[in-house]
Amino acid sequence: MRFGLFGGARSSGASSSRAGPVGDSIGYARYIDYVLEAEALGFHSVFVVEHHFTGVGQVSASLNLLSYLSARTSRIRLGTAVVVLPWHNPALLAEQVATLDLLSGGRFDFGVGKGYRESEFAGFAIASSEASERFEEAMAFLRTAWRSDGRFSHHGRYWHFKDVVIEPRPLQRPHPPFWLGAGSPASIEKAAAEGYNLLLDQVAPIEVIVDRVRHYRNQCQRAGRAPGSYQIAVARALQIVSSEDERAEALAVRARVLGAIGGLARGPGAERYYNLTAEAASELARDDAPLLGTPEEIVARLQRLEAGGVDYVLLVDPTGSREALARFAAEIKPHLEA
Amino acid sequence: MRFGLFGGARSSGASSSRAGPVGDSIGYARYIDYVLEAEALGFHSVFVVEHHFTGVGQVSASLNLLSYLSARTSRIRLGTAVVVLPWHNPALLAEQVATLDLLSGGRFDFGVGKGYRESEFAGFAIASSEASERFEEAMAFLRTAWRSDGRFSHHGRYWHFKDVVIEPRPLQRPHPPFWLGAGSPASIEKAAAEGYNLLLDQVAPIEVIVDRVRHYRNQCQRAGRAPGSYQIAVARALQIVSSEDERAEALAVRARVLGAIGGLARGPGAERYYNLTAEAASELARDDAPLLGTPEEIVARLQRLEAGGVDYVLLVDPTGSREALARFAAEIKPHLEA
Repeated sequence: MRFGLFGGARSSGASSSRAGPVGDSIGYARYIDYVLEAEALGFHSVFVVEHHFTGVGQVSASLNLLSYLSARTSRIRLGTAVVVLPWHNPALLAEQVATLDLLSGGRFDFGVGKGYRESEFAGFAIASSEASERFEEAMAFLRTAWRSDGRFSHHGRYWHFKDVVIEPRPLQRPHPPFWLGAGSPASIEKAAAEGYNLLLDQVAPIEVIVDRVRHYRNQCQRAGRAPGSYQIAVARALQIVSSEDERAEALAVRARVLGAIGGLARGPGAERYYNLTAEAASELARDDAPLLGTPEEIVARLQRLEAGGVDYVLLVDPTGSREALARFAAEIKPHLEA
Repeated sequence: MRFGLFGGARSSGASSSRAGPVGDSIGYARYIDYVLEAEALGFHSVFVVEHHFTGVGQVSASLNLLSYLSARTSRIRLGTAVVVLPWHNPALLAEQVATLDLLSGGRFDFGVGKGYRESEFAGFAIASSEASERFEEAMAFLRTAWRSDGRFSHHGRYWHFKDVVIEPRPLQRPHPPFWLGAGSPASIEKAAAEGYNLLLDQVAPIEVIVDRVRHYRNQCQRAGRAPGSYQIAVARALQIVSSEDERAEALAVRARVLGAIGGLARGPGAERYYNLTAEAASELARDDAPLLGTPEEIVARLQRLEAGGVDYVLLVDPTGSREALARFAAEIKPHLEA
């Protein structure tokens, strides 16, 4: 089993007083140290989120942060989870991605998405009903840009480029691996059919993850993609506890994280995590999605994932603690590696 | 007198066989070493160009390259010369610039322009007649973004943003220094009146540079800007020669550089540099714009600039030679410093 990180830095924020303990709630400097520590501890990758206009200082310019990190690291892979394509000029994005890939020595993993936060669509003044079409147009552009030897033109619904060539070339040919976040059967089928690696979320319980992994593998086989030619990474919250008091505190943090994820996404059900009923609290305690518990309990959850075909887990630590990372590497990771 | 670098890296390029010796014609890895050497030699800054769709591999994602360099350096200032605002979504640009400023510890110098290459306007499918209006709209957005404490909206001709906050904040408050390339009296007056620092080009002869410096200073005074609150940087080609053979070769390179600058800009007069007449060659030899000659001759040209009020020169070495840089630092720089 391989392990990476999922999350991001947080600046002090335009309104940091109301910043919740979301997964990317740590300052840039501290986050950079965290990534360096992860590389030293043998972690395989770091995937950085990108969000805009949150008011809580989430990373907005993920490709710039990763360009910086590419100079501070030498081995760890650097990924986005995700770049929301509808926000970006696809030609500039192709240039930025290729530059990062070149500077990092081919260590970039390109996670892409179509966006889901209504606040971001509103901010950019882009209709969310256009998300899928904008995503597909950008992907078509990127694939063409990186497969063309010479100049090409693009005339889509949202973008026009005439007689262009995208420079520099990425180091990974024809392009860095594409990753897609997916959950529904249809989106998993799309990811498999169109050559994406699969990012699975931190909210779904183990059984659901295992189902999705199976479905994606089957669909890859159907699409003629050889085992070993694709990857699946599963995001999981990391919350190691050493006592029942710490467990209670960890569950309270988990509730706030779920509330924040839901709240920022304007998804349904966010409110229930802010004022937990006894029933919701009990449900939360039984939820096996997070790596929440003692090292032994966490090893057990990871072994269940492993038995279900998961070999790559991205840790999301809501506190961004280097100590938790070191403890994970010392007490948990050794039980999972081949 | 302070010295910086002006130019950029070059990848192998989509069609490198026809790459000319333009000012940014060196590979990324070599360019990075060049900047590290410049920092070690005490140079004050490095300004990176940004161009698109050239086919000769010029830097396209300058803010990513500078984010990388911010991790490899600790003291040298990092600038753009220039980011062409009409190509960029101003909100994403504000985020990228602020992230770079944060990561570099406040070392970013933000050179901006409205674009001049017809090939780039055509590539982006943007009418060059819109350049000024797009530039002004982007600048208005950037100023608002960096002076707003909270959320704001922007409804311009080309961009709409609703209830947004730009994060992170740059480290330099309220924003990194703005630099504007200018030549005509009107553009110099604009730079002075609107709070820009001034970038002067590598083509104008010394007398013209001195006139422009005087005009800008006068206009700054008129605008109530205190001496010391603004900067003027003058780009100059660096071509040290040790013999008459080397001088002839340097002049041939200079002719090709001028041809390339003109050719890429589709400016008038590019052709004359490709097949030099005797008259054009003689004119080129008398041109005092480049720092072309023996160290003594170069010191003399710099002293003339200094006497004309220039205290900041950005070197453009068409060969990107670390040896030339070291020789400049050893044999020329000591004669100019206070």
